[in-house]
Amino acid sequence: MTSFASDNYAPVHPLVLEKLSEVNKDHVKAYGGDEITSSAVELIKETLQAPNCEVNFVFNGTGANVTGLQTVMDSWNAVICASTAHINVDEGGAPERLLGIKLLDVATKDGKLTPELIEPLWIRIGDQHTSQPNVVSITQSTEMGTVYAPSEIKALADIAHKHNSFLHLDGARISNAAASLGVSLADLTSKTGVDIFSFGGTKNGLMGAEAVVFFKSELNKKYPWIRKSSMQLASKHRYLSAQFIALLTDDLWKKNADNANSKAKLLRSRIENNPKIKITQKTQSNAVFAILDPNHTKELQKKHNFYVWNDNTGEVRLMCSWDTTTQDVENLAADINSICK
Amino acid sequence: MTSFASDNYAPVHPLVLEKLSEVNKDHVKAYGGDEITSSAVELIKETLQAPNCEVNFVFNGTGANVTGLQTVMDSWNAVICASTAHINVDEGGAPERLLGIKLLDVATKDGKLTPELIEPLWIRIGDQHTSQPNVVSITQSTEMGTVYAPSEIKALADIAHKHNSFLHLDGARISNAAASLGVSLADLTSKTGVDIFSFGGTKNGLMGAEAVVFFKSELNKKYPWIRKSSMQLASKHRYLSAQFIALLTDDLWKKNADNANSKAKLLRSRIENNPKIKITQKTQSNAVFAILDPNHTKELQKKHNFYVWNDNTGEVRLMCSWDTTTQDVENLAADINSICK
Amino acid sequence: MTSFASDNYAPVHPLVLEKLSEVNKDHVKAYGGDEITSSAVELIKETLQAPNCEVNFVFNGTGANVTGLQTVMDSWNAVICASTAHINVDEGGAPERLLGIKLLDVATKDGKLTPELIEPLWIRIGDQHTSQPNVVSITQSTEMGTVYAPSEIKALADIAHKHNSFLHLDGARISNAAASLGVSLADLTSKTGVDIFSFGGTKNGLMGAEAVVFFKSELNKKYPWIRKSSMQLASKHRYLSAQFIALLTDDLWKKNADNANSKAKLLRSRIENNPKIKITQKTQSNAVFAILDPNHTKELQKKHNFYVWNDNTGEVRLMCSWDTTTQDVENLAADINSICK
Amino acid sequence: MTSFASDNYAPVHPLVLEKLSEVNKDHVKAYGGDEITSSAVELIKETLQAPNCEVNFVFNGTGANVTGLQTVMDSWNAVICASTAHINVDEGGAPERLLGIKLLDVATKDGKLTPELIEPLWIRIGDQHTSQPNVVSITQSTEMGTVYAPSEIKALADIAHKHNSFLHLDGARISNAAASLGVSLADLTSKTGVDIFSFGGTKNGLMGAEAVVFFKSELNKKYPWIRKSSMQLASKHRYLSAQFIALLTDDLWKKNADNANSKAKLLRSRIENNPKIKITQKTQSNAVFAILDPNHTKELQKKHNFYVWNDNTGEVRLMCSWDTTTQDVENLAADINSICK
Repeated sequence: MTSFASDNYAPVHPLVLEKLSEVNKDHVKAYGGDEITSSAVELIKETLQAPNCEVNFVFNGTGANVTGLQTVMDSWNAVICASTAHINVDEGGAPERLLGIKLLDVATKDGKLTPELIEPLWIRIGDQHTSQPNVVSITQSTEMGTVYAPSEIKALADIAHKHNSFLHLDGARISNAAASLGVSLADLTSKTGVDIFSFGGTKNGLMGAEAVVFFKSELNKKYPWIRKSSMQLASKHRYLSAQFIALLTDDLWKKNADNANSKAKLLRSRIENNPKIKITQKTQSNAVFAILDPNHTKELQKKHNFYVWNDNTGEVRLMCSWDTTTQDVENLAADINSICK
Repeated sequence: MTSFASDNYAPVHPLVLEKLSEVNKDHVKAYGGDEITSSAVELIKETLQAPNCEVNFVFNGTGANVTGLQTVMDSWNAVICASTAHINVDEGGAPERLLGIKLLDVATKDGKLTPELIEPLWIRIGDQHTSQPNVVSITQSTEMGTVYAPSEIKALADIAHKHNSFLHLDGARISNAAASLGVSLADLTSKTGVDIFSFGGTKNGLMGAEAVVFFKSELNKKYPWIRKSSMQLASKHRYLSAQFIALLTDDLWKKNADNANSKAKLLRSRIENNPKIKITQKTQSNAVFAILDPNHTKELQKKHNFYVWNDNTGEVRLMCSWDTTTQDVENLAADINSICK
Repeated sequence: MTSFASDNYAPVHPLVLEKLSEVNKDHVKAYGGDEITSSAVELIKETLQAPNCEVNFVFNGTGANVTGLQTVMDSWNAVICASTAHINVDEGGAPERLLGIKLLDVATKDGKLTPELIEPLWIRIGDQHTSQPNVVSITQSTEMGTVYAPSEIKALADIAHKHNSFLHLDGARISNAAASLGVSLADLTSKTGVDIFSFGGTKNGLMGAEAVVFFKSELNKKYPWIRKSSMQLASKHRYLSAQFIALLTDDLWKKNADNANSKAKLLRSRIENNPKIKITQKTQSNAVFAILDPNHTKELQKKHNFYVWNDNTGEVRLMCSWDTTTQDVENLAADINSICK
Repeated sequence: MTSFASDNYAPVHPLVLEKLSEVNKDHVKAYGGDEITSSAVELIKETLQAPNCEVNFVFNGTGANVTGLQTVMDSWNAVICASTAHINVDEGGAPERLLGIKLLDVATKDGKLTPELIEPLWIRIGDQHTSQPNVVSITQSTEMGTVYAPSEIKALADIAHKHNSFLHLDGARISNAAASLGVSLADLTSKTGVDIFSFGGTKNGLMGAEAVVFFKSELNKKYPWIRKSSMQLASKHRYLSAQFIALLTDDLWKKNADNANSKAKLLRSRIENNPKIKITQKTQSNAVFAILDPNHTKELQKKHNFYVWNDNTGEVRLMCSWDTTTQDVENLAADINSICK
């Protein structure tokens, strides 16, 4: 049964598995010294239109975020992020544990930081007694299913740089955002002033692979040791990098994201007029957020897999994937409309 | 070209890829809540003849060792291990970084700890000023290609337990050891008093998957948080666990290990009588260690991929894999004997 | 010139120095094995009416808070505290760095947590993906100069315990709170359900000494190693413990606190009717918080030493000490009233 | 009774207490912003003949070593040190815990590193899989009571610098070494190529104060945050810095050290001809190391306080202090010679 719980409940896209089979021959250097990895790196540089960026592969999203941030942070630094950010509430405290840093989380209405929200947070700069913010981290698309326009990212990059800080982009669902906005992956990253980019693949049809991209190449200097001592260095590296080759070949990233996004839009259209349901967020990527009566939710969960996002308000998250079908959506929508009345 | 550099230069066994394809359908729960993972866990319990052990999957060997150790160690504890141990010299300092602990490394002649070597290390117990050893860690097969007999493991477990300490077994190449000794995986683990077991798969034909096994189930209590905050929790978990199903089905683990081991024995037999070569270790698993003239080594490395293990002595490591062929070995041996004279 | 910047600008009370001289003879055991330390411990147990509590001395307040918290926290735990808490904004990120934990900080109007504010924070309990709150930390008197009544502490202890969590009390200014409330130090600690208590001395006339008190003695089990590996174990220990003997002899703690508190009340009374000044907090201990015109503040700071607490609002903190005199206050008040008009 | 257990069993020199009383007036800035601290810093610069060095005060020796090292180390770095080094065996694992680093400890016969011993340790440089040595740490005088001549320090500094590494000097007993060698404190530090210097005071008559000195001033850039987040920043800072003023005034450091050293020499002379006793180390500072019959040791410890240094060999350490008297030594020597026969 297709789940609306998370895009990581979905299987791997067949073309990705095919690519894994294709590279599964011969002995090649371990730890990223192989040519498959070199090709994947080149493909990412090209895709991001950033010939001088540095690219590294890691196992998972938390690994990408935390090791990427480590390149610029001391333990007395702080990251400015949305309260809903994955690094704040879904990484088991890994940023604090592994970097020793503080997260300065900001309440938002839609998961998006704005210049107005973050500007007041650079206070007590130079004061040894308090954590010093030096990174702004945003998620694209956000944990609330919304997206940042390129101009919005630029504005945040500008303010970060003005304060000698870095802009980190957690792109666990960057493909969904780009597809939704109709822009390129470069338009959202290299062209906006992002410094550190977690390029997500697992949630968009890969088996398990993420890339850490530095647009300032000097940030990469210590990265090999950071990755290794963070236990994020894969030995049989080709099987991470090959996944990205599949993702970036023939726009698979976009096709997968388009499907997930369009299914979310369809789902929304099917339920948004139901007077018992309150849609709570714009549907700009592959998730629909809505408040349902908790009794309805319980009833629905007997047939469908999805998460309650906020126990206090009854908000639920309905997430579509690269493989969600129109029929999956129609079935869910029908059940929702039949139960929520 | 087949490499003798490391068993992680090898590709993935076709049956493993096949299993990945087989499980690649439907939405399933992420993070290990799926039935494929449950099946893999059951299979491991059965294989290890330990119905009450706890099994968890992680990405890589360093991840398995470090997160496993974390369950029993405070930062003021110390691990007793061989100087040549992977945790001591090949994990980028991850044990110290992530656990804050000290490694009390012991010089050995063959990579193996003995009761005599370790007994003197429990000193100043109860003294707040110094690190308190509470784990003995051994590698099976060792980094020097040697193996511990079950009775040797038992003796080390006994001494560890006598000192209120735990026995950790880094089984990155446990299959090679079991195959070499002609014993079961249970004979080397659950039956010997091992407490924490890093069950290696990647070096024996998997794509990238290791299991952390606790034979005292209470050690598992905090493990979910340890794994998550160590960035070792895979979202699309089935693709880790399925690899172990393949490995433990129809004794694939043993077949792969047997091939690697027998090729190492063959290689040794082909070169050990060469008077210009000094074999330095017993060949009890899949590696041959030998001292070559550095000039010969340089010449050989133009045609073959292998590591110099000790720059000072000229010792090299020649490692065979699940897919090393007789022809690969004969080619290498011929070149060695033709160059080293 | 007497400063109103902080009570740690003040010198050491003469009786404390006298006590240091008195114990300055003979060789005694280092690291707390001496009889002076034993006497100090007994005196604290008696003062706190807690014969079974455990008492340890450390160098400073951050040291007391962080090492005390370490006894009950894993890196995936979280502390619930006020946004203004010292551990949150004035310890250089030491809790995050040294414990790896997250602080869940709560906005308050007066620096005080309430059951209503904290109850919603125990969410996603048992979820490996997110930090698990297991400590509530309060400061007494608070960073905003307010105090918790014993019944308020009890209520917070109850809710913490209900959630299998601990209550930590940062008592950097516990003496000021007790003196202000007219209760004993026991009334605020052992009798209210506090589990971990940072007993502050430095801000109340000591040279530099704090005590970490555990009311559940089992929390002390690992403490010697925690303290040592946190670099908070003093070798010439008697010079820390003797300070507490001085503090708890003849109610010096209370006399010092009474003076500081009464001077703050006097200061408030002298300026609270000035229409150009807005008192922002209750004056329940030794600090007066007030909003002044920033230009007036600048003018005043030419003659008097005090901190601007909030650059955005113009709020300043005027802090009295054990040695602040009536004349000091009258001089400051006169200048304030002469400038702020 | 005067103890021969450790120089930190001794009381504080009266001139130090006097200085503390002298500075005990007025409000001064906290956290080192006061003029007493500035004076102490100047005095140290002058003493070390290093006008551009940076000086910071901390609470204790472990704090000095660990925070000093943090300025140049990443978690994947390693310190080369003697096996007997305080950082290796007497800091409760604080270097590993707080810095995440590895200690590469080297067996020595007398606690002293030599170029020959350390040169082989810079291996696998640039290899992400293994810890990268970048500091050599020596103790002066050593934990075995021996001293490095200035030329020996220079040789170690040269080799460290050749390998892009730093030389750290743990000077917990630097005064004893300088006094013993008849050289200045500058001769042992600024003039030898030391980069990071833990300037010890506590063991030479202070109450509790150490200084961290950087001879390359850029190392100080992040130090304020390192110190604060390591919980080593004293609020009432003057009471640390004043102790150093006392120590460096009228050569108190030398007088104290000379007394301790000469008493150790006297003690040695009284017992070295006893055929039942084997002196194990040169007596170049304030400690005598000797092997006694364990039964004799037990008997002696009924009357005298001293440590068994090595349970296996029966080696004991007899340590003299700034206040050890000739009579103390004669009493101990008489008892030793009366019991050990």
